[in-house]
Amino acid sequence: MTSPDVLISEVGPRDGLQSVKATMATADKLRWIDALHAAGVREIEVASFVPARLLPQMADAADVVRHAITLPGLTVMALVPNRRGAEAALAAGVHKLTMPVSASAAHSLANVRKTREEMVEEVRAISDLRRDIAPHVKLEAGISTAFGCTLQGDVPEDEVIRLAAQCVAAGADEAGLSDTVGYANPAQVRRLFKRLRTEIGVHAGAAHMHNTRGLGLANCLAAYEEGVRTFDSSLGGLGGCPYAPGASGNVVTEDLVFMFEAMGVRTGIDLEKLMAARLPLMAGLPGEPVYGMTPEAGLPKGFAQPGAMHV
Amino acid sequence: MTSPDVLISEVGPRDGLQSVKATMATADKLRWIDALHAAGVREIEVASFVPARLLPQMADAADVVRHAITLPGLTVMALVPNRRGAEAALAAGVHKLTMPVSASAAHSLANVRKTREEMVEEVRAISDLRRDIAPHVKLEAGISTAFGCTLQGDVPEDEVIRLAAQCVAAGADEAGLSDTVGYANPAQVRRLFKRLRTEIGVHAGAAHMHNTRGLGLANCLAAYEEGVRTFDSSLGGLGGCPYAPGASGNVVTEDLVFMFEAMGVRTGIDLEKLMAARLPLMAGLPGEPVYGMTPEAGLPKGFAQPGAMHV
Repeated sequence: MTSPDVLISEVGPRDGLQSVKATMATADKLRWIDALHAAGVREIEVASFVPARLLPQMADAADVVRHAITLPGLTVMALVPNRRGAEAALAAGVHKLTMPVSASAAHSLANVRKTREEMVEEVRAISDLRRDIAPHVKLEAGISTAFGCTLQGDVPEDEVIRLAAQCVAAGADEAGLSDTVGYANPAQVRRLFKRLRTEIGVHAGAAHMHNTRGLGLANCLAAYEEGVRTFDSSLGGLGGCPYAPGASGNVVTEDLVFMFEAMGVRTGIDLEKLMAARLPLMAGLPGEPVYGMTPEAGLPKGFAQPGAMHV
Repeated sequence: MTSPDVLISEVGPRDGLQSVKATMATADKLRWIDALHAAGVREIEVASFVPARLLPQMADAADVVRHAITLPGLTVMALVPNRRGAEAALAAGVHKLTMPVSASAAHSLANVRKTREEMVEEVRAISDLRRDIAPHVKLEAGISTAFGCTLQGDVPEDEVIRLAAQCVAAGADEAGLSDTVGYANPAQVRRLFKRLRTEIGVHAGAAHMHNTRGLGLANCLAAYEEGVRTFDSSLGGLGGCPYAPGASGNVVTEDLVFMFEAMGVRTGIDLEKLMAARLPLMAGLPGEPVYGMTPEAGLPKGFAQPGAMHV
């Protein structure tokens, strides 16, 4: 069994759920995560470790992590905004921490009420913490608003790259780039990931693209062609950033996996089983809109999935 | 004033309308075409010359053409399925004829009740006809189901390329490739357009992509990177092929133009005016769904369009 060509990092249970009003029951979350795992998904952002009073949806974060880490071969990721969240996530047993660090000064203050410099220090504190108590745990910095910001408009590319390098210097294992508000275009995606790789080499992380203006998959394609091999996406396109006005639409996992598999790029994910994983999602969030063009249109006649055999 | 980098060929008034049940009034069509022209669109497929009893929507084809050819700088295109249609289109004064030629044997029979070989002979007859009576008129063969077919599944690439070459040998000035049913993926798009260019050189024509599985823009990007410079799309995503079961969704012109302009690839089209051209479309087809993510999300804050100055 060879390993897949790309890693699809499913963010629905955290990024997706965070923007949904109804609280999903813990049992439903676990069924959904199990179905994603059964489809071959090998990295899931399962929760956010934030105070339950701020985000009741994530009150069961530790329970969700404790279940997810029992699934063989799965990298269990959690978002942590600060050291306190990181302590709780590490105690629950996560394999990987992700920290959002805004490249836009305005978005950083609006989203986490901290400056970018303060966030880099937070990355350092969390990196030191996990080295002390769980040195095998990985730390990713997700550079949000890396392609533009609804609050301040343009975000200078130099600042994006410098911030990513600062996060790595502060101890992050990876820094990825997020198109939080759907402003990115393929030329910009190529340019920024090329610069990122030049600047931080193997520490260059995931492409987290949104489909707000329909360019999500084109941007993923551009990132892939620039050497990116990890892609964040959300089953059914659930989610978006609630603090970026006008932002919406994570890339739909089903469409992203279809694109790669159709190209012969192996994801390790079985598309039929992935589409079946929509059922527990919909059952757990009755009435919530779930997107995806491939699930609606169905797979092409006679479609053979090279990746399916690797599940 | 420099010329644009790519040509966006708007197919809504023909391809789009053909799949709509309500008949659009001639005056509404003209207002819509005027608005597209005012936005900087420089090629429009305005009508199909088919018997009015088969397609009442196109009964006014000659009137629409006679108006469209008064708009300065506009290339007025019409679809013709056969010699009789070509005679009527030439009499009305079109600048360019387009003929659909299916690469799928099954689709060819279902769509026009002719074999592929018969369609190549039709291309030859029409090419000869226009050389006799209007030698300045261009003829394009649109190779449909070039990336797969809902009826027969896989369409061998050799057959697609051979058919395109046969059409050019029969007199077509260009042969483009159409993803009639939305099966294409970016790797296949690159491969086929590369082969097409190798085979027929400057006669390689437009990319006509559908968004059925969400890959429309990614496929246009792949075609662009392979050297394609003409792209078919439909305002508001109107249209699809009524004879290909499960087919839907032309690439949305607004999103396509946004992608290119954001990349710095000039289309010559003003995005604000293009979005305004949705109004006459919607007024002329009350209740008809009109798509597009960029119109819904709006342009990015501070978005500057290099192409707009060329309108």
